[in-house]
Amino acid sequence: MTTAAICTIGDEILIGQITDTNSAGIARELGKNGIRTTMMMSVGDSAREIEEAVLKGLQTNDIVIITGGLGPTKDDVTKKVLYTLSGSEGYRTDARQLEIIHRILSSRGLDVLEINRQQASVPSRCDVIPNQLGTAPVMAVRFPEERFGHRAVLYSLPGVPYEALGALPDVMADIRSAFSIATIRHKTIMTYGIAESALSEKISGWEANLPENVRLAYLPDPLKGVALRMSVYGEYSEESADGIFRRQTSLLKEILGSSIYAEEEKTLQEVTGELLLAAGKTVSTAESCTGGLVASLLTSVPGASGYYLGSVVSYANSVKENVLGVPAEVIDTYGAVSPQCAAAMAEGVRRLTGSDYSVATTGIAGPGGGSEEKPVGLVWVGISSDKGTRTVKFSFRNDRLRNIERFAASALNALRLEIV
Amino acid sequence: MTTAAICTIGDEILIGQITDTNSAGIARELGKNGIRTTMMMSVGDSAREIEEAVLKGLQTNDIVIITGGLGPTKDDVTKKVLYTLSGSEGYRTDARQLEIIHRILSSRGLDVLEINRQQASVPSRCDVIPNQLGTAPVMAVRFPEERFGHRAVLYSLPGVPYEALGALPDVMADIRSAFSIATIRHKTIMTYGIAESALSEKISGWEANLPENVRLAYLPDPLKGVALRMSVYGEYSEESADGIFRRQTSLLKEILGSSIYAEEEKTLQEVTGELLLAAGKTVSTAESCTGGLVASLLTSVPGASGYYLGSVVSYANSVKENVLGVPAEVIDTYGAVSPQCAAAMAEGVRRLTGSDYSVATTGIAGPGGGSEEKPVGLVWVGISSDKGTRTVKFSFRNDRLRNIERFAASALNALRLEIV
Repeated sequence: MTTAAICTIGDEILIGQITDTNSAGIARELGKNGIRTTMMMSVGDSAREIEEAVLKGLQTNDIVIITGGLGPTKDDVTKKVLYTLSGSEGYRTDARQLEIIHRILSSRGLDVLEINRQQASVPSRCDVIPNQLGTAPVMAVRFPEERFGHRAVLYSLPGVPYEALGALPDVMADIRSAFSIATIRHKTIMTYGIAESALSEKISGWEANLPENVRLAYLPDPLKGVALRMSVYGEYSEESADGIFRRQTSLLKEILGSSIYAEEEKTLQEVTGELLLAAGKTVSTAESCTGGLVASLLTSVPGASGYYLGSVVSYANSVKENVLGVPAEVIDTYGAVSPQCAAAMAEGVRRLTGSDYSVATTGIAGPGGGSEEKPVGLVWVGISSDKGTRTVKFSFRNDRLRNIERFAASALNALRLEIV
Repeated sequence: MTTAAICTIGDEILIGQITDTNSAGIARELGKNGIRTTMMMSVGDSAREIEEAVLKGLQTNDIVIITGGLGPTKDDVTKKVLYTLSGSEGYRTDARQLEIIHRILSSRGLDVLEINRQQASVPSRCDVIPNQLGTAPVMAVRFPEERFGHRAVLYSLPGVPYEALGALPDVMADIRSAFSIATIRHKTIMTYGIAESALSEKISGWEANLPENVRLAYLPDPLKGVALRMSVYGEYSEESADGIFRRQTSLLKEILGSSIYAEEEKTLQEVTGELLLAAGKTVSTAESCTGGLVASLLTSVPGASGYYLGSVVSYANSVKENVLGVPAEVIDTYGAVSPQCAAAMAEGVRRLTGSDYSVATTGIAGPGGGSEEKPVGLVWVGISSDKGTRTVKFSFRNDRLRNIERFAASALNALRLEIV
């Protein structure tokens, strides 16, 4: 199996000022392409440290990917290392990257200074993969078998995550051609509402019967649920991989039904938005314990104004009563955290905004405020539409912020289930 | 200077399923204690890989901190490495950790099984630092000078971030006593509203005149602004460090005035909440472009119900008009993104909820919807109280999600400035 080491460069990583997210992003992409990451390293902006880490990686791996140390003011360090390792003689200017530099700076109304032009200058024995998103190019140094006992390639990417991850498709294409790696195809099935361990039990029979060349990964996320990623390895044509995915997805749907909310990488808010757009329907929200997070998630999707009307965050009972019209006797009799209140909130905000659907949350996020009867982590979700109003209860056992996330995702999922 | 290497362990890190946040958290804490992190590594759940990485770290560093590979089902790998490296002869049970295991499991209503008891069993030559937050203890292996040419200590922490970071104060105390490291004292000043580069220019004179033993770090964050951390190094008594901090903070306040919102690590929402609580006042929010994020931030603080009444997220103009009472002619004449609309939204939600203060946002988060006159990144914030209503404009140049964050933080800061 082709293997890789990842090395991120930057004093700001070593002092903990920034969390290295490049390594995880690169490792995910390598994994999708069937390449195993054997180690990750982070070192400071020092040529000696970078060279040492890169050599360590190259000795036991086919591929080393480094990020960082390529900014206009940092250029020298990483490039010097590439110069030495590649045995370059002089520098050359890459015309394609220079053009990109001109384009980017002029779009920002800036002049191209010598320091900017320098970024297109690369050690003579480095191949360039143009970086469309920034001024520093991706560089590749190719080592013959004699050097480390196996063919190896070193890729140097910019440190800015947006640019590093943006360059990955081109880098992966280069890797696939350099190492003639068989294409791996993936299909991701998004599920919500079943915990990872329960899900694994539920689909164990299906999983055991997967064809030998199909691997399965569980990818859990508090806001997205559990994503199931099937990967087809080996020399299969695209058609037969598609066939496998179709068959396995349909078997999975028989087991999981509406717990599946998408057959590609998506969020609950994206899917819910698409359902609403397709149906030409609108939604509003009434939030107590989630404090605006459901609204914030729904409006994080570009174009949300096409179906999202608004929310009333009714943190105080007075707002529940005066704005949403929850009857005082509902709160007095059953409490604010009750199915009766969740229903009245959902109906209230639907009346107020005139939306087709509405969803309401009322619960106890903690750390304080719980009781034996209504513990921290309890939430009631109300859903209202012209089909009527229903409520559903969820219980979690997390800290305040994680509870709020789970509450919000559960509300979005309840809304989705109501629409489909 | 005392140096450290950090090594995180776990196949889930190498496949990119989780982002390693432990390394940054540990590096920050080491830095606060005057210890320089020279390298970070991540390796898989393999004894050979762990041992190799640990030895590499120990050869050139005083301290190596590893996290992970200690769960009830993973116990063996890391412990075997510690067993070998420490030259242990057999295992012993740590009574303090066993007691914690009993306490944690019984609080969850679970029985203590053999697999749980095993977690309190440690190689004979490992010191234990009890882990109060989880079942796996922190272990320390102390190496004499003969072994690596310098005294060295290896610390093994659990992988769960909450437990790893929670154990750090005890680990740092052990490090300070093992290496007789002089205490470093820190003071963090939180600022909002001045970009890092402008801030650096504004305080360059002050910075140049800082006493020699004081170092300054800029720590920028989209939601918190720029934190300035002063660190006093060297053999100073606590009193004189306090004196330095008092003098320098007061000089800084003369330059930055109300841009400083806290003299310790805090968020805008915490400080705003404290101001409201102290004044016995309440607040409500009316949000368009921020879609509930201001509400979500305010309610992320435990106890927010003491001052936060609620929000109207008026994404649709109909909600602005019908719920918040924004006159239709305001929207027709000036548009929804206008100071007039921001003011009417703020006044509307204050009337609706009866709050003492209110804050409103209306802007263009993007990617679409901008014009020459009202570009993407423009936001109007309205603030209303019994002193009247005022509006303030901000412009940013980010992607949708980052724009929404900046809008929300600017609104919180405008609210804070209104209260003080």
